[in-house]
Amino acid sequence: LNINIRKAVPQDAQTILDLIIGLAKYEKLEHQVSNTTTLIQEKLFGNQPVAHCLIAEKDSAPVGLAIYFFNYSTFKGKAGLYLEDFFVEPEHRGAGIGKRIFKRLIQIANKNDCARMEWCVLDWNEPAINFYKKYEAEELKGWTINRLSETQLKKNS
Amino acid sequence: LNINIRKAVPQDAQTILDLIIGLAKYEKLEHQVSNTTTLIQEKLFGNQPVAHCLIAEKDSAPVGLAIYFFNYSTFKGKAGLYLEDFFVEPEHRGAGIGKRIFKRLIQIANKNDCARMEWCVLDWNEPAINFYKKYEAEELKGWTINRLSETQLKKNS
Repeated sequence: LNINIRKAVPQDAQTILDLIIGLAKYEKLEHQVSNTTTLIQEKLFGNQPVAHCLIAEKDSAPVGLAIYFFNYSTFKGKAGLYLEDFFVEPEHRGAGIGKRIFKRLIQIANKNDCARMEWCVLDWNEPAINFYKKYEAEELKGWTINRLSETQLKKNS
Repeated sequence: LNINIRKAVPQDAQTILDLIIGLAKYEKLEHQVSNTTTLIQEKLFGNQPVAHCLIAEKDSAPVGLAIYFFNYSTFKGKAGLYLEDFFVEPEHRGAGIGKRIFKRLIQIANKNDCARMEWCVLDWNEPAINFYKKYEAEELKGWTINRLSETQLKKNS
């Protein structure tokens, strides 16, 4: 099986957007997507990238991605790797592509002296939950994520 | 009331650690803290800071802090502000210090063209939940945070 995991480059902007939309569709959240190739160029490949992207290729065709950034654990005093988006196209699942991406992320976390690696999973996403179970990740019970939207931020400014 | 919100400086390392421990005690998670002033100097004030810190002073004495970093919304294609730690010493609550810190954070999010501001809250932390309610933040239901510890990361490398 010819699988390759590589860092994304600016020329991947359209591929990245397609995969982000693919994930959003899978999560039934497509209506929330307003990202564009221009924004991807700016935020992922500009002077101050806010996140990093890995692309998974099968026989040289892009079939998956991971978008991550570094956060900070105040308790541990070290950076953490936060996996914001992780997606393998449904028709390419079961071939170990997700495992390869995940292993690469763990290596990146270790290389950057991270105290932890974190991600969020939707309660109904059984395939993802089963995938993560193999790594014996801790589920952080009792915490709820709160969010102010851009509109709310502007209203409260 | 003489309240001042300012950016933290390297000389605040001990103050920051004290306030992080104060929050950890309040959250009943003190046993998880292994941060040190050396690590704070390195990660918050080194060449590549991984997070930012605001200090709240009342009559020139530190009484609260906020530690935040920028994350990335793949759906919106913009940065977000993530509030990792937010703490006002219990004996100084009710004087509007938390509101002043929170307002400053919203201003920072807007200045940095953020698509959102997010934080996590513990289910039993009623005073915090009531504080956040005033801002009409969305509670992200159905998502669970998963975490691999440093030990697990090393084991899976």
